[in-house]
Amino acid sequence: MPLVRIDAVNTRSDADLRTISDGVHRALVETIGIPADDRFHVLSRRPPGELVYDPAYLGIRRTDGVVFVQITLSAGRSLEQKKALFARIAANLSEAAGVRPEDVFVNLVEVARENWSFGNGLAQYSL
Amino acid sequence: MPLVRIDAVNTRSDADLRTISDGVHRALVETIGIPADDRFHVLSRRPPGELVYDPAYLGIRRTDGVVFVQITLSAGRSLEQKKALFARIAANLSEAAGVRPEDVFVNLVEVARENWSFGNGLAQYSL
Amino acid sequence: MPLVRIDAVNTRSDADLRTISDGVHRALVETIGIPADDRFHVLSRRPPGELVYDPAYLGIRRTDGVVFVQITLSAGRSLEQKKALFARIAANLSEAAGVRPEDVFVNLVEVARENWSFGNGLAQYSL
Repeated sequence: MPLVRIDAVNTRSDADLRTISDGVHRALVETIGIPADDRFHVLSRRPPGELVYDPAYLGIRRTDGVVFVQITLSAGRSLEQKKALFARIAANLSEAAGVRPEDVFVNLVEVARENWSFGNGLAQYSL
Repeated sequence: MPLVRIDAVNTRSDADLRTISDGVHRALVETIGIPADDRFHVLSRRPPGELVYDPAYLGIRRTDGVVFVQITLSAGRSLEQKKALFARIAANLSEAAGVRPEDVFVNLVEVARENWSFGNGLAQYSL
Repeated sequence: MPLVRIDAVNTRSDADLRTISDGVHRALVETIGIPADDRFHVLSRRPPGELVYDPAYLGIRRTDGVVFVQITLSAGRSLEQKKALFARIAANLSEAAGVRPEDVFVNLVEVARENWSFGNGLAQYSL
C-alpha cells in the first residue's frame, strides 16, 4: 500500500538505486507490518542542481548523496512505529547502500485506507 | 483542482500517455463532479527498473505496463464516489489506452479546499 | 520541513529553475515562518506535453510557462497564512523569475509534525 517516491542524485548507479529502494521496503516490512509483497516505488535520479537541500539544517551535515524518501501510506501508525520506521530506513540505507545516515530525508503522507486501488478498479482495503 | 501525477514505463508513446491522462481526467469528471476544465496533470515515463511494483500483491497480476496514478484532491468524497472513481479510471484506461485493469494502481491524497491556488496568488476555493 | 516539488516546462534554463525555487523558498520564510535553512526541493523539467494544464480554468489564462508547486508541510497554518503564502509565491516568481502570476499553480499537502525525519533516522520534530 505505501506508494514510495525516492529521489536521489543522478550519479548513483542503477544497482545503488535499487539497493536503496530495497532498504526502504525492508524497513516498512520490519517496523510497521507492511506485507512483503506490498511494494510500489517510483525512483528518480536528478542532476545535483535539481535536488535542493540545506547542508546543515538542524545541525545535520548533508551532502550531494542526499536521498529524499516520501512515503504515502494509510493513517494509523503510532509515533513509536514512525520513529522505528525512520531509524530502520536510515540504518538499512547506511548498511546496504552506503548512504550516510545524515543524508536520509524521510516524509510520511497519511491517507485513509479507502484511498487505494491496487488494480481492477476496486478499493481493495474497503471491501 | 485535482493535481494528478501519472507514472508509466518509458516504452509508452506520447499518444498512449496522453490517452491515459485523458482517461483519468474523464473519470474524475464523470464520477466525482470535477469540472471538465479543471485539469492539471504531471506525466512521467521511466525506465522499467525505476517503476517498482509487486507482480502479484493481493493476487492481482501486474506487468511492466503498470500505471501509477496519484491524485491529490480536496477532501469530502464519499466511499461510494471513490469506488466509482477507481472503477471508471480502470475502465477508461482499459478501453481507450489498452491498459490491463490489473495494471492500474490509484492512490488518493486528500487536502483541505483552501489548499489550492490556481493562479494569481489567490486561494480561489476559499474566497 | 516543507518538501517542495516544482514542475516546469523543459525550456526553462537551470538559472530560471533555481530562481523559481528561490522564490518559493523565500515566500515560505517570509509568510509562514519556515526557517531560512529549512529547504528541501525536488525540481523537474518536462516536455510541454507532459505538463498538462487547462488554459482557462476559473478564467485564468495559463501558458506553457506554467509552474506547478506542490508543498508538503506540517499542518497548522491558518487560512490567512495560506493566503499570504500563495500571494507571496506568485509575487516572488513574477518579480524574480518573470513567471506570469496566472501561471503559478500551488497545492499544499498537510501532514503531522511527527511525519518528518531530517537525517540520522530521527523524528526531529517529535523529540
